[in-house]
Amino acid sequence: MKPESEMNWSRCFAQRTALMRRSAVRELLKVASRPEMISFAGGLPAAELFPVARVKSALMAVLDGSGGQALQYSATEGLPELRDWLARKFSTGRLRVQRENVLITAGGQQALDLIGRILLEEGDRVIVENPTYLALLSAWRTAGAEFLPSPCDSDGMRVEEWKPLLKAKPKAVYCVPNFQNPRGTTLSLARRKRLVALVRAHSMAIVEDNPYGDLRYNGGALPNLLELDARNRGASGFDSRVIYTGTFSKVLMPGLRVGWVIAAPAVIEKLTQAKQAADLHTGTLSQHLALELVSRGFLEEFKPVLRRNYRRRRDAMLTALEKYFPGNATWTRPEGGMFLLVTLPKQINAGELLPAALERRVAFVPGEEFHLGGAGKNTLRLNFSNARPERIEGGIKKLAKLLASKRH
Amino acid sequence: MKPESEMNWSRCFAQRTALMRRSAVRELLKVASRPEMISFAGGLPAAELFPVARVKSALMAVLDGSGGQALQYSATEGLPELRDWLARKFSTGRLRVQRENVLITAGGQQALDLIGRILLEEGDRVIVENPTYLALLSAWRTAGAEFLPSPCDSDGMRVEEWKPLLKAKPKAVYCVPNFQNPRGTTLSLARRKRLVALVRAHSMAIVEDNPYGDLRYNGGALPNLLELDARNRGASGFDSRVIYTGTFSKVLMPGLRVGWVIAAPAVIEKLTQAKQAADLHTGTLSQHLALELVSRGFLEEFKPVLRRNYRRRRDAMLTALEKYFPGNATWTRPEGGMFLLVTLPKQINAGELLPAALERRVAFVPGEEFHLGGAGKNTLRLNFSNARPERIEGGIKKLAKLLASKRH
Repeated sequence: MKPESEMNWSRCFAQRTALMRRSAVRELLKVASRPEMISFAGGLPAAELFPVARVKSALMAVLDGSGGQALQYSATEGLPELRDWLARKFSTGRLRVQRENVLITAGGQQALDLIGRILLEEGDRVIVENPTYLALLSAWRTAGAEFLPSPCDSDGMRVEEWKPLLKAKPKAVYCVPNFQNPRGTTLSLARRKRLVALVRAHSMAIVEDNPYGDLRYNGGALPNLLELDARNRGASGFDSRVIYTGTFSKVLMPGLRVGWVIAAPAVIEKLTQAKQAADLHTGTLSQHLALELVSRGFLEEFKPVLRRNYRRRRDAMLTALEKYFPGNATWTRPEGGMFLLVTLPKQINAGELLPAALERRVAFVPGEEFHLGGAGKNTLRLNFSNARPERIEGGIKKLAKLLASKRH
Repeated sequence: MKPESEMNWSRCFAQRTALMRRSAVRELLKVASRPEMISFAGGLPAAELFPVARVKSALMAVLDGSGGQALQYSATEGLPELRDWLARKFSTGRLRVQRENVLITAGGQQALDLIGRILLEEGDRVIVENPTYLALLSAWRTAGAEFLPSPCDSDGMRVEEWKPLLKAKPKAVYCVPNFQNPRGTTLSLARRKRLVALVRAHSMAIVEDNPYGDLRYNGGALPNLLELDARNRGASGFDSRVIYTGTFSKVLMPGLRVGWVIAAPAVIEKLTQAKQAADLHTGTLSQHLALELVSRGFLEEFKPVLRRNYRRRRDAMLTALEKYFPGNATWTRPEGGMFLLVTLPKQINAGELLPAALERRVAFVPGEEFHLGGAGKNTLRLNFSNARPERIEGGIKKLAKLLASKRH
């Protein structure tokens, strides 16, 4: 019955689109955002903590100060003052970061996407944590990457077991060293040092993705790979194999879509060219708002608020898991971030549990999509930053009941 | 003297990066934004017309109404209410547009980039105006496109001369039918109809890029290709070969980075998947701000202001060109938009004039980069929306003097 001339779009699409999928996480966010839902699903910060009044006054200050320029086109690299602020923040005794080392991006996701576009081509191999950040896999798969999953434990990637991976001549390592998504685990200092040494020895690049680093609830902070890899050359500048990505999404507000890359000038230059074609530049008003907030020290006020609240939520989740979950389930115990990963007995498929959980008004993300090589079917990623502690306990109790009902 | 271990980044980059370049336009914008400069360079709206007070009150309304949700993550497709507003705006008697036909993007540039990513692969051919929008060429080149330049005249693409182009089996046509960049010319109604018929006959897709359509200063509006190609199927929905891109950048404020695609659901679905990997979603606060402004009818107030001011500026430029420019120069006479193109005698290279022009504090963009096949060295793209009329006259006078000095 179709008229001949109707367009068959699926026949038109480029081959690379076969690698594109809807992410279950993002689809879930839609249901999970209903108020009646207890959501352990998305990577959502707690919106009720957002400093709405402060944002209002910051926006007024920006528009009074910059007027129409805050609404105009701006440079692809980002606002110079925001780049300078980040350069100062990331400069240490070992590492001198300058404006030319900083690119502002539309959130951390765009940073990762652009890095994939400039670095990877068909068949290039990348070592990744297994499980790892789902949207990294989506972005880099279409750039042509093949992933080499690293074995992981509660101290992150088992770098000491990389020998077989290195034989495949990987071009880069992608690593979320702090409170990674989805396991919440942190790469130990010894492994950080070993990783940096291995990468230097094998002429690889490191993409260090650090969205959660500032959200540490216990334990001592560890140095970034960026810093560990740095060689201080004083005025001669920045020599590092690390391409570092960060974002204001987790410590300020994700709706602004402001993230960044810190890297060698040659990398920033190429990323800037890619960004110019991708979206010209990051939102001018968003950048001005972020700059206004951070340059007045707002992060130093806000990060303790986030840490205090999210620590309580993490603890509520760990306590509830201990209290309600069956003895044959295990889970990670993150020192920070937003997620932990629960592992159920092998025969339980978390994806099959989800519809029943949603019916009971609890949302989570099945862990399978974060895993390479078909593992993780029996895992659940649980976010603990979005719901209040009492709702977290209620939600975990519901999930536990659901699990108990499945055993009969 | 380089230590062995220093990273040679240029050896690391993917092959596709060889096609990436810095755009002279964007680089120029940096110099051109200095207040002492008379800028005919960028595609900048007039920032002094931006409704700063109105933006302030709209932001307050958004934050009072939506609170933290206006700063939170949001759906990849865009705010439902904004998609609905656009669907209503683009629905006509012939064409029924629904929410599922709309994707919100980070400005028109991201719309074009995502379309390239889902539609084009190595060697796919695309008919384009010659000259055409520079950043389209950058974005689609890295997706693998080969461009088939269409001859053009003051009525746009000479569709009647496409026979040799069609032999090369193009997959798509990219067209800016209204006041195109860089020439400012408009595709005539007869050619619009012929183009749509040809595209149907040859099973091609049309990418209709219409950032300037609302900025018409004289002459009657012509129907969009989207509408000309539409077949009204009532409830059965949207059947069109057109992928339409629009933006608030030229009629509201570019610093928000809010644009959109109108297309068949299958196209929107695939673009959504690509966008999810590219940047998760468009800025939430920006979308709320745009929605607050447009849903209260602000565009109907603001477009006449823009049209009145830009018409005056266009007229000032045309008058000054007539008065000061040498008789052997010609230029287009746009009925709208932001640009016109000046053609100098063949022996004059506009790129070589630019440094001297910048010294005299006038900026323009050499037309060569917009041209395919090595043409256009003797052309200048002049923007008339950014500078005030009296400065436009002064700037054209300076350029004319510079031209006169070069003849000796």
